[in-house]
Amino acid sequence: MSPCQHSITPQPVAGVRVGSVCAGIRQPGRPDLTLIELAAGSKAGAVFTRNQFRAAPVWIAERHLSSNAPRYLLINTGYANAGTGERGEPDALACCRAVADNCNCAPEQVIPFSTGIIGEPLPVERVAAAIPNVCADLREDGWEDAAWAIHTTDTRAKQVSLHFELSGGPCTITGIAKGAGMIRPNMATMLAFIATDAGLSDTALDRALRHSVGLSFNRVSVDGDTSTNDACLLAATGVGPEIEGEGADFERFQAALDAVCIDLAKAIAADGEGASRLVEVEVRSAVSSAEAEQVAFTVAESPLVKTALAAADPNWGRVLAAVGRAGIADLDVNRLRLFFGEQLIAEHGGRSNNYDEAAAAAELARPQVAVTIDLQRGNSNATVWTCDLTAEYVRINAEYRS
Amino acid sequence: MSPCQHSITPQPVAGVRVGSVCAGIRQPGRPDLTLIELAAGSKAGAVFTRNQFRAAPVWIAERHLSSNAPRYLLINTGYANAGTGERGEPDALACCRAVADNCNCAPEQVIPFSTGIIGEPLPVERVAAAIPNVCADLREDGWEDAAWAIHTTDTRAKQVSLHFELSGGPCTITGIAKGAGMIRPNMATMLAFIATDAGLSDTALDRALRHSVGLSFNRVSVDGDTSTNDACLLAATGVGPEIEGEGADFERFQAALDAVCIDLAKAIAADGEGASRLVEVEVRSAVSSAEAEQVAFTVAESPLVKTALAAADPNWGRVLAAVGRAGIADLDVNRLRLFFGEQLIAEHGGRSNNYDEAAAAAELARPQVAVTIDLQRGNSNATVWTCDLTAEYVRINAEYRS
Repeated sequence: MSPCQHSITPQPVAGVRVGSVCAGIRQPGRPDLTLIELAAGSKAGAVFTRNQFRAAPVWIAERHLSSNAPRYLLINTGYANAGTGERGEPDALACCRAVADNCNCAPEQVIPFSTGIIGEPLPVERVAAAIPNVCADLREDGWEDAAWAIHTTDTRAKQVSLHFELSGGPCTITGIAKGAGMIRPNMATMLAFIATDAGLSDTALDRALRHSVGLSFNRVSVDGDTSTNDACLLAATGVGPEIEGEGADFERFQAALDAVCIDLAKAIAADGEGASRLVEVEVRSAVSSAEAEQVAFTVAESPLVKTALAAADPNWGRVLAAVGRAGIADLDVNRLRLFFGEQLIAEHGGRSNNYDEAAAAAELARPQVAVTIDLQRGNSNATVWTCDLTAEYVRINAEYRS
Repeated sequence: MSPCQHSITPQPVAGVRVGSVCAGIRQPGRPDLTLIELAAGSKAGAVFTRNQFRAAPVWIAERHLSSNAPRYLLINTGYANAGTGERGEPDALACCRAVADNCNCAPEQVIPFSTGIIGEPLPVERVAAAIPNVCADLREDGWEDAAWAIHTTDTRAKQVSLHFELSGGPCTITGIAKGAGMIRPNMATMLAFIATDAGLSDTALDRALRHSVGLSFNRVSVDGDTSTNDACLLAATGVGPEIEGEGADFERFQAALDAVCIDLAKAIAADGEGASRLVEVEVRSAVSSAEAEQVAFTVAESPLVKTALAAADPNWGRVLAAVGRAGIADLDVNRLRLFFGEQLIAEHGGRSNNYDEAAAAAELARPQVAVTIDLQRGNSNATVWTCDLTAEYVRINAEYRS
């Protein structure tokens, strides 16, 4: 694959306009409402949370996407419209109707997304009142403002663009995401919105999205808590080159989409609530990919591993203890090899002979840390991204509602 | 069942003597070595961690117990003798031999237990040097000192005695335990030592112990991390009344043993690292006991639920989100009812009509908090104990080795 052009400033996608405004949904004076307009004829596919307590907008978004002529994505922060009982769905629908009325489309062409506090009703009247303003703000270069507007406890905007050549011409994929806490997507993700000017069939789009999500958002955990509102949507405007469902162009596109999703997923882990470092946990040579993922997540979600990482303390025994409880019945603990970065830390059931505590601590003090566990029992690998667990995480989550 | 006499000061058990000394294993000047002597003819049974990285003393303890003539339990803190590679087992055996030499018994009659830091070798010579002292300290009223000597990051001694009548005469059960972090026993427990003067057959003793552990230590989680050294041992000296494997006396004994184990398990959760309150999560009306336990543990281990509890913040949406990701495929979220203490907080998928935020916050500000989830889908219940997640937890675990 020839090099893509990678940009951390999100680039416009032909056929997409984005607007963001302050609607005063929960706090005055901060952007909290975003509208993404897709050109007529765009396709969109999405994956949603598997949490049984799905928020009302998740149900509506899934239903509206099945009508298959998406024109607008409406995203609010402040309140998640989850755990809102019987009023949840009518409230979400009323927001869609407000967009439809302003933009001359059917309500089913509006896909709603909400994020924020669970259990409080959505102030529909404030959302509806802001729709004319957010429509007036629609522009091709609105992505970066949107990346800020959709955030909650995030401290950084999560955005990326890839620009690459297909046989039919140049193609762009731009994505933004939000998420810092309640992050353990289960066959879905936090909120992520990705658009391309490529043209794809519904099935090709869906297949590409699920493949990328499986390697990226589904491999992230900040705290093991799966959100009620997770959603990841991919829109393809078709203004740019058409892509068949297989062949070199599709593979090229898939690789670029994987890269965009992994980039956003890593950005979410790096900006995990209270995080001081991004942690990449790679499990090698497992019997199956499910086993590799299970071990990686057990290590990535261990509070004892995560607090040791916060202190850059090479307390490798905690990693071994986490692997040991990951549910592999016939694990041979003497075969396992543990690395921090490139350094071999433990083997043969104990500390490596070459172990150097100062070097190990220096490895863990980096802003990006790699923990690699080689099980030496098969041919499957998996990588999971997480962050360390700091006192700041507790402060953020003990004070989030106050 | 007529009333038991319950005592928070551990009472002597006929046929048991306990000694504790400072052996300077890791830190000078703190009691860190305990020896429990069982009268000749005592029986003992134990359950051990299912972590695949079992510490060396766990292997040795299991093997020595099978020889079935236990006389001494040797417990050290400071170092766990886990992740110590090939030297782990010879080191644990050398400690047993030191006791055997001093006490004129076979090394197989000494059962070793270690707790503390993983990955560092056990200083065998310091343990061996202290054996004559700890033997000289053996006394019937040594239980309370031992409850302190076996602790690591614990802030409180965990001890209880029950005294009750059986048909053959009065009977005592006394137990001590340690554990504050790396607490999520899996078919086993942290360190707990329980003795009775009753006489039981091996099978009756084993059956009684497993029943009690299933209702107590296996229902506790501080941080979801299963230790490499967990062990719970029950010794029966037979100096007191004999108990048949079934009948009224056995039931009486079982109920008392359940109460002792639940008391110690709750003490461990209440003293969880950094904890400011004990949290009892009860799941009612599940389809199976496994389902009830799974939901209860998912809620009890959710960092978002635990940080909200640290702030006494009635952020009930986080409880619903945790239930929703607990893996019940056909959960009807509209049937679920959530209570804090006696207060109904949520039902019909949203906030209860009678919800009173100030009253809910007051309920959560107590030192002992009850979170009850009524699934209304079956006849099985389970109760799990945990604690809140505070910034102090992070501080303790980021600094534990320094």
